[in-house]
Amino acid sequence: MAEWMLSESEGYDLLNKYGIPTPKYRIVTRAEDAGEAAEAIGFPVVMKIISPQIIHKSDAGGVIVGVGTKEAAQSAFNQIVSGARAYNPQAEITGVIVENQAFPGLELIIGGKTDPTFGKVITFGVGGTLVELMKDVTLRILPIDEQEIREMVKEINSYPLITGYRGSKPKDEEVLIQIIKNICKMFQDQTELREFDVNPIRLYDSGACAVDARVIMDDNIQLLESDTRMEVPIDYFKPKSVAVIGASDEKSKMGYAVMHNLLHFPGKVYPINNKRDSIQGLQAFPSILDVPEETVDLAVITVPARHVPGVMEECGKKGVKIAVVITAGFKEMSEEGHMLEDRIVQIAHKYGTRIVGPNCLGLIIPPIGLDTTYVAQSPNPGNIAFISQSGAIVNTVVDFSLTKDIGFSMVVSVGNQADLNFFDYLRAAAADPSTDVIITYIEQIKNGKAFMEVVSEVTRHKPVVALKAGSSARGQAAAASHTGSLSGSYDVYMEAFRKSGVLVVHTLTGAFHAAEMLSHPKRYPKGRRAIVVTNAGGFAVLSSDYAERYGIKLIDLPDYLIKEMNEFLPEFWNKGNPIDLLGDASEERFRKTFEVLAKNDALWDMCFIVGFPNNILSSEQMANQILKFSSSTDKRLIPTLLGGESMNRGRKILHAHNIPSFEELDFTYRVVGRLLWQMYRVKAQGLY
Amino acid sequence: MAEWMLSESEGYDLLNKYGIPTPKYRIVTRAEDAGEAAEAIGFPVVMKIISPQIIHKSDAGGVIVGVGTKEAAQSAFNQIVSGARAYNPQAEITGVIVENQAFPGLELIIGGKTDPTFGKVITFGVGGTLVELMKDVTLRILPIDEQEIREMVKEINSYPLITGYRGSKPKDEEVLIQIIKNICKMFQDQTELREFDVNPIRLYDSGACAVDARVIMDDNIQLLESDTRMEVPIDYFKPKSVAVIGASDEKSKMGYAVMHNLLHFPGKVYPINNKRDSIQGLQAFPSILDVPEETVDLAVITVPARHVPGVMEECGKKGVKIAVVITAGFKEMSEEGHMLEDRIVQIAHKYGTRIVGPNCLGLIIPPIGLDTTYVAQSPNPGNIAFISQSGAIVNTVVDFSLTKDIGFSMVVSVGNQADLNFFDYLRAAAADPSTDVIITYIEQIKNGKAFMEVVSEVTRHKPVVALKAGSSARGQAAAASHTGSLSGSYDVYMEAFRKSGVLVVHTLTGAFHAAEMLSHPKRYPKGRRAIVVTNAGGFAVLSSDYAERYGIKLIDLPDYLIKEMNEFLPEFWNKGNPIDLLGDASEERFRKTFEVLAKNDALWDMCFIVGFPNNILSSEQMANQILKFSSSTDKRLIPTLLGGESMNRGRKILHAHNIPSFEELDFTYRVVGRLLWQMYRVKAQGLY
Repeated sequence: MAEWMLSESEGYDLLNKYGIPTPKYRIVTRAEDAGEAAEAIGFPVVMKIISPQIIHKSDAGGVIVGVGTKEAAQSAFNQIVSGARAYNPQAEITGVIVENQAFPGLELIIGGKTDPTFGKVITFGVGGTLVELMKDVTLRILPIDEQEIREMVKEINSYPLITGYRGSKPKDEEVLIQIIKNICKMFQDQTELREFDVNPIRLYDSGACAVDARVIMDDNIQLLESDTRMEVPIDYFKPKSVAVIGASDEKSKMGYAVMHNLLHFPGKVYPINNKRDSIQGLQAFPSILDVPEETVDLAVITVPARHVPGVMEECGKKGVKIAVVITAGFKEMSEEGHMLEDRIVQIAHKYGTRIVGPNCLGLIIPPIGLDTTYVAQSPNPGNIAFISQSGAIVNTVVDFSLTKDIGFSMVVSVGNQADLNFFDYLRAAAADPSTDVIITYIEQIKNGKAFMEVVSEVTRHKPVVALKAGSSARGQAAAASHTGSLSGSYDVYMEAFRKSGVLVVHTLTGAFHAAEMLSHPKRYPKGRRAIVVTNAGGFAVLSSDYAERYGIKLIDLPDYLIKEMNEFLPEFWNKGNPIDLLGDASEERFRKTFEVLAKNDALWDMCFIVGFPNNILSSEQMANQILKFSSSTDKRLIPTLLGGESMNRGRKILHAHNIPSFEELDFTYRVVGRLLWQMYRVKAQGLY
Repeated sequence: MAEWMLSESEGYDLLNKYGIPTPKYRIVTRAEDAGEAAEAIGFPVVMKIISPQIIHKSDAGGVIVGVGTKEAAQSAFNQIVSGARAYNPQAEITGVIVENQAFPGLELIIGGKTDPTFGKVITFGVGGTLVELMKDVTLRILPIDEQEIREMVKEINSYPLITGYRGSKPKDEEVLIQIIKNICKMFQDQTELREFDVNPIRLYDSGACAVDARVIMDDNIQLLESDTRMEVPIDYFKPKSVAVIGASDEKSKMGYAVMHNLLHFPGKVYPINNKRDSIQGLQAFPSILDVPEETVDLAVITVPARHVPGVMEECGKKGVKIAVVITAGFKEMSEEGHMLEDRIVQIAHKYGTRIVGPNCLGLIIPPIGLDTTYVAQSPNPGNIAFISQSGAIVNTVVDFSLTKDIGFSMVVSVGNQADLNFFDYLRAAAADPSTDVIITYIEQIKNGKAFMEVVSEVTRHKPVVALKAGSSARGQAAAASHTGSLSGSYDVYMEAFRKSGVLVVHTLTGAFHAAEMLSHPKRYPKGRRAIVVTNAGGFAVLSSDYAERYGIKLIDLPDYLIKEMNEFLPEFWNKGNPIDLLGDASEERFRKTFEVLAKNDALWDMCFIVGFPNNILSSEQMANQILKFSSSTDKRLIPTLLGGESMNRGRKILHAHNIPSFEELDFTYRVVGRLLWQMYRVKAQGLY
């Protein structure tokens, strides 16, 4: 089990094997040979120390460039070796590499790493010594095709340097594409290749040359595997009977709140408590095995961790399909807890029982009235599946949903994911006819490859929205401590989600707005071109700002469209986009405007409509015009009804038709910006 | 009236005059002299064409570098001149400049421009040909002192290139500071200097050299003047009698809604309408002059624009102090309208009458029950002054305020600002004892210099929050069309606000959160160091992410603090910041944590506290602990109570003590990030 770095020449050989041009080189071990080698290669040459212990050669005085004569080569050899010996007397010096000095060119970097969660990742960007300052890089998860490579290259801010900038000639983009392709092939073929940086690759008007390569091999790279476990049958999530193990009459105990929520379950509920005859009015049993049924479908377990194995054994024997283990004190707490967790999984699997959790809030299936959690009030049924790696966030979201008329098809707090994990819940939600859209809160994923396979399949049928925590170093550490999982790079997560068709948002409320938008049959906008219509000048100006900030393109209105609108708009309307219909705009003015836009909907992909409280046009009138407009075009409408309660009527009408209406204008554009990021990798500008 | 560009040598002379090093040069008009001049200066030299018509010399083949001999100089001369003639046969060629070829160095750019709103502005950043790609520049409004210059230099992302990076030696930062100082002096001294770019200045290990300068002079630069008008006496905003000119009984007319709102004014209200005896139950008069009082304090005018001059004359005669002209059709509409506007101001000033508007929503002073606008429902009294350049935004904010328990000391829709403008309202709000904080919505400012003077004075006593529209090019155009004002650079506005002590936000709701926070006696946090306390692991992770995104520094907890907390926290608490008190945290656990933090408040400047709905700790318990905590430390507390209505009790308690509580976690950090931007120019990261 070892990792090792290739020497300079080994690196060059590997690149050459894949058709990537590098400098010609020779290795010499004596000063006398240096001159001959240099002459054979062709002056000028670069000479570098070869030593496994000396990594930053320049620091050690171990690099000399511009060597122009045989004599210079000879003295360079001596200078290099003595410099290296002074720098690190213990270093093993195997020789000096003499290589052709490549011409200066545009310096780029192509790198690869093996992400613990998502596997092999390629990065590309501006290289050279400024690479860390400029941070102008982009990444992709392998495998990728040529089209994606071309997009990757175009994505960097400095792309103009490749196509020709300020008088300098274009560089050889085709050769660059080919090189990246070959590097991807190299990375995929070489199973022991763990990470590498080719920095810089010098790109010329014609051709290129890889001038430096750092390549790290590892014979113990963990391969990520596909998920081959069986899909959980859908009826597992439709129990007819539930046992609560640790049910309690004491209000401070978790077993109390859980029982309390299950009291409204229409199926059978069996409190299990070996100290009582009845709990909260229902007959209690000392063990699940005492329940007078052949099987019990689902068990909710709240007893202390050390008792769970014994209880799991009994559940298994009773034919329990799903055991929801709410109890904490497993893998997240200690090594001992981890072992306990492995044990209960082992026991469960003996019987074919599947486990939710442990260390979770529980599972809620509102359409069948099942709530195994201890939330204060159960959520309403609806069409959103919410799968969360944080119990507190489930609690908050459920509480919030009650005031916002949001309902769920299922709510899962995944806990430690000892057995059932994200993909199981995603597949279940995908198969569930009540679910139209899935929202996930994710801190860590264990097997990214499997995740991407599962999610890519899910997103072909239903939208998935993700809030990914851990964008900061500190957040990643916090997440790791929170769930006991390994940490992974946020950038890679973002790309993985995007590639899998997942919509990433950055706020909880954003998740719900996006979900509502995506659950509408129109789903994603078909493109980036936007029009804004409002009766408020101030909001027209702000709309321009927000659209630009979040990467939304406001189109210029063609003359014929302006002419058509001149027919019914006041002479001094702004004749541009955003379209300001002015504060005295009547329902009729909106209707005509919407008609013209619908007729010309080939010009745009989404229309933002912004209304505010005013005497002339009520929110319900506006909403009705919006509904009419929506049914007369395939394109996406995004209304924002700003103000207080006076706008509620309009909001209700839109909500009933699955057309979300936002209440804060910046937020509207921010969420739509996320959709465009998913579709086009559109970058949002930094907040000032 | 003219503008002209200095020639290369004139530019060098100007820089030299202010002690800025440039290459030595000579100008020659004959090839024969070129060699001698080059030799005198010292090889190698750079030779450039001198022609007022040829601006991009390189494009014209008008620049030759690396001239190393007399012969080369002579042929270079010929090549340059013939190249120029080929490029632009009409160009006037006055000669060729022969200058010392400066060594390569770190290329920086120092620029200056005269912003139409805020005057002279200095920019500094990374220069050379990549300047447009890297966009690594920062700016300041003159005058600035040495301290600010030093901060400016440290602010660029590429600052490490100046202090020494990846083995390269540090550059001469002191010389750079001196050069910037001198350039600022030059810019301020030279009254005809309108704009310039010194790009690049090459910075060396020791010394520097300005290698290229583009300098544009203008003999017609409009000087911005201080505002020398008289402050509006405070009693002008406390009328005892109001006349409504254009008052109406017809519900569709503006004069109806305005009367309707004035019906609850406790003072005298006089409808003026020459067709009726009474309006909405009050006796009407044909003219304000017929009102049986010696004077009428305030008039609200809703009659068509063409009638306003006559009406203004009458108001003036009646001793009206403030005329609120709601009517549109003035400067914002046409040249004719502009002239009409000038006329009514002239008439008003004859009598000492001041004008609000025209083309505005009106003026509201809730503490005295005055509402001259046509909003559907008047806002409640409170301590916020809201001054807006958009009527629709006033309408929306007022409507929104009713549901959110927000009250105002004054609300002004400034309209065209023909007479009273932003500074008048700002001064009035500053002097008003009911006002604790001022929120402004700004699209354009006419005189930035005066604005900065007025606002800087105001912010010394009361916080000012600004939402500035027009960050996008399109937004600026929209704003200009909206109010008929000139456009100015958003970056400069941001710096002007920051320099004047104004807090800039990007959303309306953010404005109100910020205002509430700043109206608390604790005002701005004293520094950037933050601690997060929560009972929700998921929100701890998100907090880390959001804090980092918005530039908030979460401190590391020192060992002694962790030890102290170990005394009362469960063994497996995360021992870090954010502090996760775990989902079962009792009131006691919070109390003890807050006690320890208060005792150690020298370590931190702000403490974020995040709560969620749970059975163990109610929102009111949490709020009460927060209040206790707040009174035991000078440092700033920022609670976020997440969830739905179940958290309302806690929110109410906090709100009553002017401690705002947010409902969306990202938003909390985003708004606090704005405070830190104001204080420290902290950059928020781009949204992914």
